[in-house]
Amino acid sequence: MKKHNFYAGPSILPEFTKEKTAEAILNFAGTELSVMEISHRSKEFVAVMEEARQLIRELLDVPEGYTVLFLQGGASLQFLMAPMNLLKTKAAYLNTGVWASKALKEAKTFVGEVVEVASSKDKNFNYIPKNFVVPADVDFLHYTSNNTIYGTEILKDPEVPVPLVCDMSSDILSRPVDVSKYDLIYAGAQKNLGPSGATVVIVKNAALGKVNRPIPTMLNYQTHIDNDSMFNTPATVPVFGCLQTLRWLKELGGVSAIEKKNKEKAELLYAEIDRNKMFASTVPDPADRSRMNVTFVMNPEYAELEAPFGAFAKARGLLGLAGHRSVGGFRASLYNALPLESVQALVETMKAFEKEN
Amino acid sequence: MKKHNFYAGPSILPEFTKEKTAEAILNFAGTELSVMEISHRSKEFVAVMEEARQLIRELLDVPEGYTVLFLQGGASLQFLMAPMNLLKTKAAYLNTGVWASKALKEAKTFVGEVVEVASSKDKNFNYIPKNFVVPADVDFLHYTSNNTIYGTEILKDPEVPVPLVCDMSSDILSRPVDVSKYDLIYAGAQKNLGPSGATVVIVKNAALGKVNRPIPTMLNYQTHIDNDSMFNTPATVPVFGCLQTLRWLKELGGVSAIEKKNKEKAELLYAEIDRNKMFASTVPDPADRSRMNVTFVMNPEYAELEAPFGAFAKARGLLGLAGHRSVGGFRASLYNALPLESVQALVETMKAFEKEN
Repeated sequence: MKKHNFYAGPSILPEFTKEKTAEAILNFAGTELSVMEISHRSKEFVAVMEEARQLIRELLDVPEGYTVLFLQGGASLQFLMAPMNLLKTKAAYLNTGVWASKALKEAKTFVGEVVEVASSKDKNFNYIPKNFVVPADVDFLHYTSNNTIYGTEILKDPEVPVPLVCDMSSDILSRPVDVSKYDLIYAGAQKNLGPSGATVVIVKNAALGKVNRPIPTMLNYQTHIDNDSMFNTPATVPVFGCLQTLRWLKELGGVSAIEKKNKEKAELLYAEIDRNKMFASTVPDPADRSRMNVTFVMNPEYAELEAPFGAFAKARGLLGLAGHRSVGGFRASLYNALPLESVQALVETMKAFEKEN
Repeated sequence: MKKHNFYAGPSILPEFTKEKTAEAILNFAGTELSVMEISHRSKEFVAVMEEARQLIRELLDVPEGYTVLFLQGGASLQFLMAPMNLLKTKAAYLNTGVWASKALKEAKTFVGEVVEVASSKDKNFNYIPKNFVVPADVDFLHYTSNNTIYGTEILKDPEVPVPLVCDMSSDILSRPVDVSKYDLIYAGAQKNLGPSGATVVIVKNAALGKVNRPIPTMLNYQTHIDNDSMFNTPATVPVFGCLQTLRWLKELGGVSAIEKKNKEKAELLYAEIDRNKMFASTVPDPADRSRMNVTFVMNPEYAELEAPFGAFAKARGLLGLAGHRSVGGFRASLYNALPLESVQALVETMKAFEKEN
């Protein structure tokens, strides 16, 4: 039976990424050594790092004056590094979920003054706040473009009078972004890019060097810029895996092409959720619904069928559909690498379950 | 032609680690999913993390009251985290090389008062300082057990009146250690353990919580202790790779067994360096010579043969022998996974080169 991987992260990767990585674990770039056991300073690995950085530039159309880095520590370490490097006097944060709250809290507790410009906490983060005001005197607006847990997404770069800083961990490379509006974009690799352990950072060079606080060496973006992401040993296998996915995405037509596929997948699933009397989206406003993580619950009159539907789906090879404990119900993650046929399988399963009950 | 991998890190790993990792990249624990694309919270991956932590406990005989963690960021991030979490008023640092200096500098610049108890910088770090005095009022003595660049190693836990903190990146698990003397041991995985991207930390629980400074969430060991190394997504493939090496090491008889092999390999190579009129060790005192990284140069009268020897060795399949630029000459890294036959091949190459010239 074919398995369909709906995990929220680490999550499905292209077959290409898996095949190429398995090969390189045994024999990397014809060296007869594993990619795990070759110096990061070898010409073979330096080429991997450089191509991966270059492909991110190309695929996201990163302008001159920005540097692409591969770091470690995930978005959670960026919650600290971003304000340490960029917050001069005050920063604005948009609070759209647990991860956004953590980013805000880290900046406020350990770095400097923070203004929460809006929050959707009142409704368990099931919507994206609108019409909030960003003070013109803040250094940046921080936001989380996709809220993995709650199934909401900000699909357009916010129009605000200050530079943007964004955690794009769960939707990076799923659609075009106007990088020129950002001082910083960061993302853990483990959704749309590759194995966990690599963190992508896209930083505007001119935004750095303007704070007075001392920044420890490893937390200073300039350290990593000056050393081409090789200040210390990078996570070589995760970076190698990311490169394969980036090659796959380029071959496929880049972010505009994948955006079309992602739209199609999300529309298919939301249409079934809205049609099927047993299920309901947890995000009332269709404009706020995520293309990456589709969260849904049983309608109240079918509440007792939640566990049975979970078991029914699992028996049909649909994996990773359990919702996050803070939302409940189900979550189908439709990242770049998930094929349309997996969404079709889920929709058919929902229809079949409706019929049987 | 067989390749012999003498890289200083990332470096040779057991065939077992490579085979098992390549398998799991395609099909992990029978899930039909890749280890790269399964949730770190899945029962299959939680089992990997738990077994890896448990095997480190077992192999290093870690006493009760210590926690083993897998973090990210390498030793370089530990240079900051160690003093942030443990330096109350003052710390002592032993300066035996570039990495030891970096650790000292990070603590001094960003954390607190530091005493350099001794340094071997006067002779380009080609020896281990002896008879230094550690003030009894410091919180800990920080040292680097093996100096990868200079080929020196501290083979016995120092006898000092304060707890030890040690960067064991390049000799962890190569021999027994008395963990009870340490408040903290840390090591990047990429020498004796697995792929880069994982950092092992062994911390004494009772040593924590005693500093007054605020510690950012990701830099606080307690965060990771409280979350079983899963506060955020760990570097899943690197941790999986480490587990395979730990299983291999246990099967082989553990650290006492590997120490015997490591001694034999190092003695064989040092004997040839001392015997062969063309070569000289860069570490005059045999007691200071590293078992992990054997550094040697051409004797002055054969200086012009350095490049030819490099080419001669490479042509015979000996890889990664170039010395670090700050020492020059050659460096043969003899980590746990390097078989005796690779050292024999190097010794035969040195003999053959002597004969030909």
